Amino acid sequence: MLNITLPGGDIRQVAEGTTVDALCREISMGLYRNACAALVDGKVADLRTELTSDCEVAILTFDDHEGRKAYWHTVSHVMAQAVKRLYPSVKLTIGPSIDEGFYYDFDSDISITPEVLAEIETEMKKIIKEGLEITRFTLPRAEALERMADEPYKVELINDLPEDAAISFYTQGEFTDLCAGPHLTDTGRLKAVKLLSATGAYWRGDSNNKMLTRIYGIAFPKASQLEEHLLRLEEAKKRDHNKLGREMEFFTTVESIGQGLPILLPKGARVIQLLQRWVEDEEQKRGYLLTKTPLMAKRDLYKISGHWDHYLDGMFILGDPYDEEKECFAMRPMTCPFQYQVYLNRARSYRDLPMRLGETSTLFRKEESGEMHGLIRVRQFTISEGHLVLRPDQLEEEFRGCLELAKYCLDTVGMLEDCTFRFSQWDPANPKNKYEGTAEQWNEAQEIMGKILDNLGVEYTIGIDEAAFYGPKLDIQYKNVFGKEDTIVTIQIDMLLAEKFGMEYTDSDGQKVRPYIIHRTSLGCYERTLAYLIEKYAGALPLWMMPTQVMVLPVTDRAHEYAHGLVEKLDAAGIRVEGDFRSEKLGYKIREAQLNKIPYMLVVGDRDMENGTVSVRTRGGEDLGAMTADEFIAKCLLEIATKKKD
Amino acid sequence: MLNITLPGGDIRQVAEGTTVDALCREISMGLYRNACAALVDGKVADLRTELTSDCEVAILTFDDHEGRKAYWHTVSHVMAQAVKRLYPSVKLTIGPSIDEGFYYDFDSDISITPEVLAEIETEMKKIIKEGLEITRFTLPRAEALERMADEPYKVELINDLPEDAAISFYTQGEFTDLCAGPHLTDTGRLKAVKLLSATGAYWRGDSNNKMLTRIYGIAFPKASQLEEHLLRLEEAKKRDHNKLGREMEFFTTVESIGQGLPILLPKGARVIQLLQRWVEDEEQKRGYLLTKTPLMAKRDLYKISGHWDHYLDGMFILGDPYDEEKECFAMRPMTCPFQYQVYLNRARSYRDLPMRLGETSTLFRKEESGEMHGLIRVRQFTISEGHLVLRPDQLEEEFRGCLELAKYCLDTVGMLEDCTFRFSQWDPANPKNKYEGTAEQWNEAQEIMGKILDNLGVEYTIGIDEAAFYGPKLDIQYKNVFGKEDTIVTIQIDMLLAEKFGMEYTDSDGQKVRPYIIHRTSLGCYERTLAYLIEKYAGALPLWMMPTQVMVLPVTDRAHEYAHGLVEKLDAAGIRVEGDFRSEKLGYKIREAQLNKIPYMLVVGDRDMENGTVSVRTRGGEDLGAMTADEFIAKCLLEIATKKKD
Repeated sequence: MLNITLPGGDIRQVAEGTTVDALCREISMGLYRNACAALVDGKVADLRTELTSDCEVAILTFDDHEGRKAYWHTVSHVMAQAVKRLYPSVKLTIGPSIDEGFYYDFDSDISITPEVLAEIETEMKKIIKEGLEITRFTLPRAEALERMADEPYKVELINDLPEDAAISFYTQGEFTDLCAGPHLTDTGRLKAVKLLSATGAYWRGDSNNKMLTRIYGIAFPKASQLEEHLLRLEEAKKRDHNKLGREMEFFTTVESIGQGLPILLPKGARVIQLLQRWVEDEEQKRGYLLTKTPLMAKRDLYKISGHWDHYLDGMFILGDPYDEEKECFAMRPMTCPFQYQVYLNRARSYRDLPMRLGETSTLFRKEESGEMHGLIRVRQFTISEGHLVLRPDQLEEEFRGCLELAKYCLDTVGMLEDCTFRFSQWDPANPKNKYEGTAEQWNEAQEIMGKILDNLGVEYTIGIDEAAFYGPKLDIQYKNVFGKEDTIVTIQIDMLLAEKFGMEYTDSDGQKVRPYIIHRTSLGCYERTLAYLIEKYAGALPLWMMPTQVMVLPVTDRAHEYAHGLVEKLDAAGIRVEGDFRSEKLGYKIREAQLNKIPYMLVVGDRDMENGTVSVRTRGGEDLGAMTADEFIAKCLLEIATKKKD
Repeated sequence: MLNITLPGGDIRQVAEGTTVDALCREISMGLYRNACAALVDGKVADLRTELTSDCEVAILTFDDHEGRKAYWHTVSHVMAQAVKRLYPSVKLTIGPSIDEGFYYDFDSDISITPEVLAEIETEMKKIIKEGLEITRFTLPRAEALERMADEPYKVELINDLPEDAAISFYTQGEFTDLCAGPHLTDTGRLKAVKLLSATGAYWRGDSNNKMLTRIYGIAFPKASQLEEHLLRLEEAKKRDHNKLGREMEFFTTVESIGQGLPILLPKGARVIQLLQRWVEDEEQKRGYLLTKTPLMAKRDLYKISGHWDHYLDGMFILGDPYDEEKECFAMRPMTCPFQYQVYLNRARSYRDLPMRLGETSTLFRKEESGEMHGLIRVRQFTISEGHLVLRPDQLEEEFRGCLELAKYCLDTVGMLEDCTFRFSQWDPANPKNKYEGTAEQWNEAQEIMGKILDNLGVEYTIGIDEAAFYGPKLDIQYKNVFGKEDTIVTIQIDMLLAEKFGMEYTDSDGQKVRPYIIHRTSLGCYERTLAYLIEKYAGALPLWMMPTQVMVLPVTDRAHEYAHGLVEKLDAAGIRVEGDFRSEKLGYKIREAQLNKIPYMLVVGDRDMENGTVSVRTRGGEDLGAMTADEFIAKCLLEIATKKKD
């Protein structure tokens, strides 16, 4: 008998060879019905896994991240099965789970209309109803290739696997797919499914390959959850910055300038100006020194930093990168090697540290045109980049400072509540081209960072192969209104670049010492932050960052003079105010101001003139009644000074 | 007899064929001795010019710009004669007058030591003493070539002249030079001369050509003027931003990043931040809308704007400019075509105008490495660029607004007193490649601009062939501490680009109309402005823009706590303050603060602690005595708020 330790410490005895699935059933039928996968000694495992030694087992359900992945991955197989039933000539490629749901890429000539999607969905529901058992088996390579002979993409995938690998397959009914799993044990365990959209996608994401058909879907254990999700998606679509941000004239793009190079219109430019000044001032308060370093450099600099070896494809090059005879420049993809020059400008002593350098820095990344998206996937962006040069004894305290600053900034704009933390580590299996430094250096840096995170009580997940090429990172992950997760802020510990650039300081004992460096940002890149804020607030940004804060609306021509006086008075108080003196109907003007999400409308008529008051309406349609101009100004100034969130 | 009208309206009768020189002698012997050239009917003429019809004549002396040019140009011939006497094998190239003095470029192997310079200078003084008459003659091309057969560079220059030109020469004693003149009539008229330096320069400024030896010199009619000039030069050298700016750590450059790509160290970055915020706020007050447009665009945009045809060599290109199959980007050399997209974002009506767009804009110019200089000649710079889109009836008023803003900005930083105005026009003789548009369009634009300048009472000079490729400009020319003149601000009227970009508005009668555009800057580019400010103030920038405004210096350890309290108090009042708590001698700390040009030092000791005062010293060494902390703070805040110049 084996001793299986369950979460909470309970130990359960089972016979050797018992599957995780069988263990579930022993624990409780409820758990059994909801089980999607398991953690065996901390590693994700298929429910079919046979237990062969004492171990810790935790059952994962849809409520767990990895459980949900297995659930959605299983639904993607069901979708593939349905497609194959309806369109047998379609060739299968891959079908993973993603942040929200799943997709499957097919090589097919079928035009995916809403009707076709509905047809596939109906077939999927049938497959679920059929309650097909899902079984797993493995084959050696030759047999695997034979088995998949009709599926050229699967053949290609198998050929990429190690020659001696036991290649795993999952079968449900007449359908078998090459797959590493894990999967649920029965299609009948799936419940509410919905196909969402279809799009084109290149095989392996490479534009030189064939364009495939990608179908996206989502699924939940309960119909009510699906309904809620679809409602949320509907709501999110209305907030999509790529639609709303253009309509409200925060930004635009122009074909002759190019994709990924957004033009910030006056509204967007003003919000970014306000955010940048605020972050610069906040950094100055915290002892940062401002720098302004060039946006390009000769190839020589990137050769020292390692970007030339690790990042050449991601950089915009001015000149021929391979002609060593001629001067060749590149636009910078990161600020580090530039800002280090500030430190290197003269000899430094231990008394000069910590040196905190900050810069509102514009960066350039060469991306494929097809990958560009609004303000979120761009070729040029601006970010508050900073580097702290430190003695070893300052590392933890300064790391804490960076984390506090980032949390303060994210909290102030209202984004912290949608953030999680990821400790991004290297992949020891993938060090050759991707990472600088030795395993010892990486282990040391990751150990230090792990200790700091634990000391600071940061709750984090671990991301393998997510590190920077020069060191591990704490990534702050933001989940946007669509449920998609992106890294918004990172704090990185670097011991390698200081060496490459010969950075050092004279310690109190006169010895030359290599400093530690923290790379960090205070807020995400400004373009992306603006996008997220537009989506989060559906364009109704908090008062302090709204380009126009107040609109004065005279009810009649008689009130124009009074309204002009109000505009002047609010302007003098530093409030961004406009007056609408057009000869349009009041209702029309109010609607327009509301569409533009102007926080406050001051509707002023005869009675206000008599009483020296303003009648205040909010963009939400609330009527705050009449108050004196001074009362209203005080209310605004307080909201602005405290950066009140809506 | 001819009627010659003199300045002031006096008419003098002379015989036909009288030379200007003879006319001078008739007017007064004083004028005759000082005459350098003349204006005949408004055109610069040689003193040897024979008068052949009634005309207006104004004699130019060293006090006139064109007179001074003739004077210096004559000295450059004297230098060439001296070099030829001493080193007959040297080959002559060209020797013009410049803003301050003159140079001559020789093809020679002689190493120009200070001794050699002194030797040449001595020979020049001999030639002046010899009082050689300078005569002018012309030759047809074939004879001119024969005459200059020993001077290959002169042969090249002659071959560049039109085939039928009468080619002019000037002779003094044994020395003859190919030259268009004008020149003084006698080497004896020259007085105080000084050779300043020697450097290398490429023939015709092209790095593919031979490197020549360039010798710079200066000369004045009075020895006292020369002395004064040399003193000023000595003083200017101490202020040279390229030396002082590096020593004071405003900026640096790094070989691996490249020339012309300065790194703004914390001090320089802070000054530029303060200037930029101030200009942005000033523009916002004046109704400008802020934009933030991309720093690069596809070639398509530059093809529309004309930059691709007129400016390709000046742009950094990302990709192959001649491969039309592939995407090709270029870094922007100007903001115009980007900012126009903001206007173009939707249909505009006459009520939307004027639209004033402003941007703190970073630009890139591809320049030769050899031409880079500190913060003044750079490859990347940031400037407050703006474009005003206007109805015709708004042109003059808005032009006035632009001029007032520029004058306000230049005056506030203390630079206006060294500025002059230049009306930069096209050269009708050089329109083909350099200028867009027809002669009619240019004449119209220049006429409008001339009228506006006259209406505004602007005193200006005219610069032919100094226009932008799309229109005439008002250039504000700044003369730096070395006496070198550069354009620092320009205001341009453009009628061509609006057409290229299809910009229009609906007029009150419903017609679509092409708007006027003013291109303008508020202050010069920030890097260059910083350079000029460092030089003007010898690093001691006015309090409001100084990175560190106050240094608190405790006299003894006992005063540390009190000093810390002062730092906190000043900081809370928004003053940029530091404390020097090192265990160095007070005198050493004061000297260091003075070297760093910290405006105020608060030296605090026992008595200050007892009385709650601070003892204030200025960076100039003045002792302002003791005052309360509040008194000092009030004094500082007033100086900052009023942007007091030192």
